[in-house]
Amino acid sequence: MSVQSTKAIVLDHRVDGDVSTRHFRLETKPIPTIKDGEVLVKIVAFSHEPAQRQWIDANTDERRLYTTLIKPGEVIRAPIVGRVIASKLEKYPVGVTIAGFHGWAEYAVLSEAEIFAAVPPKTDGKVDLHALDVFGLAGNTAYVATAKYAKIEPGSTIVVSGAAGAIGSLVVQLAKKVYGAARVVGIAGGKAKCDWVKTLGADECVDYKAPDWEAQLRAAVPDYASIYFDNVGGPMLDVMLQLVKPHGTIVVIGAISVYNGEPLKISNWAQVIYNRLTIRGFVNLDDPDVIAQGQADFAKWIGEGKIDVDDIQTVVQDKIEDVPKTWLRLFDGSGKGKIISQLEA
Amino acid sequence: MSVQSTKAIVLDHRVDGDVSTRHFRLETKPIPTIKDGEVLVKIVAFSHEPAQRQWIDANTDERRLYTTLIKPGEVIRAPIVGRVIASKLEKYPVGVTIAGFHGWAEYAVLSEAEIFAAVPPKTDGKVDLHALDVFGLAGNTAYVATAKYAKIEPGSTIVVSGAAGAIGSLVVQLAKKVYGAARVVGIAGGKAKCDWVKTLGADECVDYKAPDWEAQLRAAVPDYASIYFDNVGGPMLDVMLQLVKPHGTIVVIGAISVYNGEPLKISNWAQVIYNRLTIRGFVNLDDPDVIAQGQADFAKWIGEGKIDVDDIQTVVQDKIEDVPKTWLRLFDGSGKGKIISQLEA
Repeated sequence: MSVQSTKAIVLDHRVDGDVSTRHFRLETKPIPTIKDGEVLVKIVAFSHEPAQRQWIDANTDERRLYTTLIKPGEVIRAPIVGRVIASKLEKYPVGVTIAGFHGWAEYAVLSEAEIFAAVPPKTDGKVDLHALDVFGLAGNTAYVATAKYAKIEPGSTIVVSGAAGAIGSLVVQLAKKVYGAARVVGIAGGKAKCDWVKTLGADECVDYKAPDWEAQLRAAVPDYASIYFDNVGGPMLDVMLQLVKPHGTIVVIGAISVYNGEPLKISNWAQVIYNRLTIRGFVNLDDPDVIAQGQADFAKWIGEGKIDVDDIQTVVQDKIEDVPKTWLRLFDGSGKGKIISQLEA
Repeated sequence: MSVQSTKAIVLDHRVDGDVSTRHFRLETKPIPTIKDGEVLVKIVAFSHEPAQRQWIDANTDERRLYTTLIKPGEVIRAPIVGRVIASKLEKYPVGVTIAGFHGWAEYAVLSEAEIFAAVPPKTDGKVDLHALDVFGLAGNTAYVATAKYAKIEPGSTIVVSGAAGAIGSLVVQLAKKVYGAARVVGIAGGKAKCDWVKTLGADECVDYKAPDWEAQLRAAVPDYASIYFDNVGGPMLDVMLQLVKPHGTIVVIGAISVYNGEPLKISNWAQVIYNRLTIRGFVNLDDPDVIAQGQADFAKWIGEGKIDVDDIQTVVQDKIEDVPKTWLRLFDGSGKGKIISQLEA
């Protein structure tokens, strides 16, 4: 099959402050002929990642980033699932579905290095989009955070912000159902999300949109927490500095509250000293072996019913031109679990 | 010798915001008769500690502090050096000088648990006040920070804020002259202090009172730093989040900028993630074995000329009623090294 061109979403201009649809534009891009070791895929779906926000920010110092910035006119980089429609790569013949890393386009040529894995079809023949959540970046990150950067002891108390998000919803489940935390407290936005977080195993969920969220959070952690998994930053981090035990750990998984340029205001910084806290940031790129183990462990835990993935994604049927609008839902809190754009066939 | 009463400085009321002399008052307190295992000392000098600020703060949650709060009417707790003038403790007979932990008074009864060590007299017969700096809390803290929480590799670049302070001035020397850091950058307030920090071994010292301090700091660390030892918090911490290498460490030794209730504003929090930083707070109480080793090592290094203690203290001759005013110099930056009140004989 030969495809000459593709619609794609490119960066219009770098973002300084709040991001919106005007930072993106639709273009038609030529598709090169595939070379040896490449495949042409028809893209089925994109995973939306908070990290993409930083790749298009005007104030990001590229020397301080683990990847390159996206430049104006370049296709927005994203994890994808796609079907191979032409192949010069024996490992991934025509008809196979692959998960990989490319960008917001309808068609794309991928080299082997950009392909993560083949995705086996589901029994109903549909594409398995869990390659973009539990078996994608969100799952990798949740696994590395809990297996390497802050191991959860059975019996401990754990707090997770962004608990209804793609990573948080897995961390809640891991803490409660895999590592045996005695008490798991989620923080999420709105009653509906909190109710859902409780179905994942959280003993308590604090709605940060409630006017008394801070009092609720303090009441939810009367004996303090051993670990705080922070996906958000913001005022919740400041309060949690007071609610993590001496010698406890704050794992900084994400900081979605600061990605649009709002600085963090911290009144309780001295707690880092007085309570001997350790704050750890990480990028899962550094831990390929742990990630490989995580893929195997997640498959096992899903099989055993310990990790429930039935409800951990918000799949939006999109035309390519609508993908930025769906991605923006990361920042308005209207998605649940992993937000995915599925391209209409 | 029998002493019936002592002048002492007590807490008048807890501090909410900026601390000043009105938070303290002079009182005459009765001295109890010493019991077995106790000594009566005539206090010679006090060491002034930033941590004392937190012990008298109105907003400190005592359950989150490693020690008890000082209550209104109680003597302000402080490290002291004093001469034993009556003893029911064989280990410390009359005439011996001891270092210990008590408070702002002219005379005090100490139990064995409150005494750190006997202080040998200097060759000129005067009291050796280094029991309050390099062999006191400041030295312990500098040693534990570098020996345990962030080991300095030879050849690395190190940044130290509060570099002209009691702890910072030792960390600069340890980094350069003991651990062999290739480049040590201090941050201090004013040209005179910066000049002094360079005599301690810093390759560069940034004056945070200069209008272009941020540009100076960036220029001073062109290849980024492996470790940032932070005694201050404040805007320097925010900039340093951008100047610590991937996988680098920020050791939070102190946070004098926030002790008076000013929140920290952080624009670069996402760097914790992108550059996989570890931020560690500690209290040296947790590490008695390391401290014991530190006392021995400092004695050796001073003997070898690697650590210079001739100039690391600002000793102020005080009447007891003037001690609070001297302590307040911790916050106006007018002291150099360890600030000590020596009581007039």
